[in-house]
Amino acid sequence: MALKIHDYEKVVGPEKIAELERLAEPLRGLSLLHVNSTLVGGGVAEMLHSLVPLFNELGIKTRWEVIKGSPLFFRTTKSIHNALQGNGMEIAPEMLERYREINRRNAEILDLNADIVVIHDPQPLPLIEGRPPGRSRWIWRCHIDISHPAKEIWDFLKGYIERYDMVILSMPEFAKYLPIPQDIIPPSIDPLSEKNRELQAKKIEEVYAKHGVPRDKPILLQVSRFDPFKDPIGVIEAYELVKREVDCRLVFAGGIASDDPESSEVLERVRRRVQGNSSIHLIAPQGEPLPALEINALQRGADIIIQKSLKEGFALTVTEAMWKGKPVIGTAVGGIKLQVIDGVTGFLVRSIEEVAERITFLLHNPDLAQEMGEMGWEQVRRNFLITRHLRDYLRLFSIITPR
Amino acid sequence: MALKIHDYEKVVGPEKIAELERLAEPLRGLSLLHVNSTLVGGGVAEMLHSLVPLFNELGIKTRWEVIKGSPLFFRTTKSIHNALQGNGMEIAPEMLERYREINRRNAEILDLNADIVVIHDPQPLPLIEGRPPGRSRWIWRCHIDISHPAKEIWDFLKGYIERYDMVILSMPEFAKYLPIPQDIIPPSIDPLSEKNRELQAKKIEEVYAKHGVPRDKPILLQVSRFDPFKDPIGVIEAYELVKREVDCRLVFAGGIASDDPESSEVLERVRRRVQGNSSIHLIAPQGEPLPALEINALQRGADIIIQKSLKEGFALTVTEAMWKGKPVIGTAVGGIKLQVIDGVTGFLVRSIEEVAERITFLLHNPDLAQEMGEMGWEQVRRNFLITRHLRDYLRLFSIITPR
Repeated sequence: MALKIHDYEKVVGPEKIAELERLAEPLRGLSLLHVNSTLVGGGVAEMLHSLVPLFNELGIKTRWEVIKGSPLFFRTTKSIHNALQGNGMEIAPEMLERYREINRRNAEILDLNADIVVIHDPQPLPLIEGRPPGRSRWIWRCHIDISHPAKEIWDFLKGYIERYDMVILSMPEFAKYLPIPQDIIPPSIDPLSEKNRELQAKKIEEVYAKHGVPRDKPILLQVSRFDPFKDPIGVIEAYELVKREVDCRLVFAGGIASDDPESSEVLERVRRRVQGNSSIHLIAPQGEPLPALEINALQRGADIIIQKSLKEGFALTVTEAMWKGKPVIGTAVGGIKLQVIDGVTGFLVRSIEEVAERITFLLHNPDLAQEMGEMGWEQVRRNFLITRHLRDYLRLFSIITPR
Repeated sequence: MALKIHDYEKVVGPEKIAELERLAEPLRGLSLLHVNSTLVGGGVAEMLHSLVPLFNELGIKTRWEVIKGSPLFFRTTKSIHNALQGNGMEIAPEMLERYREINRRNAEILDLNADIVVIHDPQPLPLIEGRPPGRSRWIWRCHIDISHPAKEIWDFLKGYIERYDMVILSMPEFAKYLPIPQDIIPPSIDPLSEKNRELQAKKIEEVYAKHGVPRDKPILLQVSRFDPFKDPIGVIEAYELVKREVDCRLVFAGGIASDDPESSEVLERVRRRVQGNSSIHLIAPQGEPLPALEINALQRGADIIIQKSLKEGFALTVTEAMWKGKPVIGTAVGGIKLQVIDGVTGFLVRSIEEVAERITFLLHNPDLAQEMGEMGWEQVRRNFLITRHLRDYLRLFSIITPR
C-alpha cells in the first residue's frame, strides 16, 4: 500500500507537512523526470521508490526511468565511480566510448521530455547529449564523494557536467569549482518504508532465527555491499580484537547489487577469511538483495552498528542504524562525518584498533550505548528524513522555474 | 571614458566576447540591482565599477545602490566580518540590533525593485527583510572566507541567508550546508581599469619618485589595507631576514577604507616598528585610498610581490600582481591557494622564515622570477578576468530566471 504524505505527520509533525504543501502549491503541474541506472539495490533506487509517489501526490507529475546497459557497461561505470572517489586505474578510451554509446542509445529510447530532469550519478550522465530543445532544466544529482577525483576521469566527465544547469551534491565538502550552481542536499531515509518502519520483537526474533544467528551474546552488525571500500576484512580484524575482551557475535549483512560486478569476488575473499568461525555470521543471499524488512530486523536486533568504510558518499546505512536507536562506530570519512556526532551518537574512528576500543567501551557501558542511540534517532529525525529531502528539492525547483 | 565590451576582445579574444553576447541575448530587459556598503575602497566596489556598465551595455538594466551607516554600524559589521572569518570576539546583542535597525532604515529608503537583487557581503545582508513581494530573485554574494565562522554569529546570520534564493561564494572550500543553492564564482579584475591597464615606464618612474622610493635595488611590495589579517609586521620580519642575504627595499602600500575603522591603529603600530629604517617605505595616504593608477605603477615597478595574509576571502591584490607578470609569495590561505600555483607562478608559504627563503631564492634567480611572472599573467588571463566573471553571472541568471 502506497504511503501518503500525511502518514509522515506522526513522525515529523504537521508543520513540516504543511510546509511541503505550501512549497509545492506554486509548482503544481510541473513535470519531473528522474533517471538512474538501477530499479533495485542501493540508496538511490531506495530514495526514488519513496520520493516519486510523494512528488506525484504533491501535484508534481513525476516519472522515473532506468537506463539499460550491458555487464561491460556497468563494469565501466563502476571503474568511473572508483576513479571519482580517487581510487582508480586508468580507464581505456574504448570503454569510455562504449559508455557514451550506451547512453546515446538510451537517450533515443527514453522519453526525456520534462520541465525538470534529474540525472542520478555518473552512469546516465552523458544522457545530456540527448537533451531535447526547450525550456527544461537539467540537474545532475551526484551521490558520491567527488572531493578528490582522479584527474583524467574528472576532466572527461566535466565536459558533460558543465552542460547541465545545476549540480546537486550530498555534502559541502564535495563542492567543486564549476561554472554552474551547486546545491547541497544530503540524502535521506524513509521512516515508514519496510527498511525503517517499526517492527515487533517477534519479527526481529524470526529474522535472526531464519539466518541462524543466536541472540545469546551482544551483536555487532555491519550492513553493506561486499565492496573493498567498505573494508569487510578490517571489520573482522576489529571484531577479533574485541573478542579478546568481551564475548560477542559479528553479523555481516550485504546484498550484491545488479550494477556492482565487483562484489562477488569480495564476498568470496571474506568467506574464506571467516571459515570455521561460528561467531561470525555472513548473510549474503546470492543473486538478489537482502529483503529490506530483514535488514530492518537485523539492525533493530543489534547492539552496536559498525560502518568501517574507507570512502563514502553518504552512508545511508548509518542513517538507518541511528534511526533504530543504535550507537554507530563509523570511520571519519564522507557523510559518516556529517551524521555521527563523535561521542554523542556514537564514535568517529580512524583505525581498526580504534574500532575495537570503542566497541569494547560501549559493550562495557550499555546505558551510555542506549543514550547514544536515542541521540542518533533524534539527529536523524531532524535532518535526514525524506520530508527534509522533499523540502530541499521543492525549494530548489521553485528557484529554477518561473514563479 | 567608459569601457566597452568590445574593448576586451584584444585581451581575451573575440570568441569570449561573442559568448557573453549570446548568453545575454535571452536576458535583455531584465532588471538587476547590486547593493553593497561602499562606493570606493575594497575589491567589491572595484568590481562593481567595472561590472555595472558592462551589464548595462549587454542589455541588462543594472543599478548599484550603497547602504548608508554610522561609524558604529561599520564597526559592528567589521566585527561580524572578523567573526565570520573565525577570529572574533562576542558581539553584543545591542550591536546586532543596531545592525538590523540600520538595514531596516536603508530598506525603506532604497528602491529594491528589480528582477534580480544581488546583495554583497554581510553589511547589507538583513535588507532581505525589506524584500518587496513579487517574482524577484535575491542572491547573497559573499566575498569572504566563511569556512570556519564563529558559531554564534553564523547562527544569527543564517536566519537571513536562508531567506535568500541563492548564495554565491568565491571558492568551493567556502561551501556550507544551506537549504538554498550555492554558486561558486571567483572574483576578478578588470584588465583595462586604471588599476590594471598597461603603463609606460615613465609613469612608473614618476609614481616611485613621487613617493620617494629610489629604484636602486630590487623592490619587494605588499599592497593591502592596514589590517591585522594582512600581517604587516610579519612582512617586515621576513624582509629583515632577506636583508641579511640580499640588499633590497620593502614597499608597503595600503589605503584606509571608509568602512574599515581598525586600520589607522594598525598603521600606527607599523609606523613605529619601521621608524628610522630608510629601506622600508610606507605609502599610506591619510583619509583617502591610494589612487588606482599609483597602485598599478607600484606593482609594475616591483620585482617580487608578497601577500602574507593570515586569512583571505580571495585576495584580488594577488590577481593584480600576477596580471603584471610578477612572481607572488603568498600564504597558503583562502583564495591565494586558488591563484598561486606553488613553484609555477610563485610560492605558497606557511611561515615568516619561508617567506624570506623564497624571496632570497627568487632574488638570486631573476630569470626564473620573470618566467613565473609570465605564467601568472597567463593564469589570470584564463581564469580571473572580468569577462569570465560576467559569463558566470549571465549563466546563473539564465538558470534562475524564466527562459
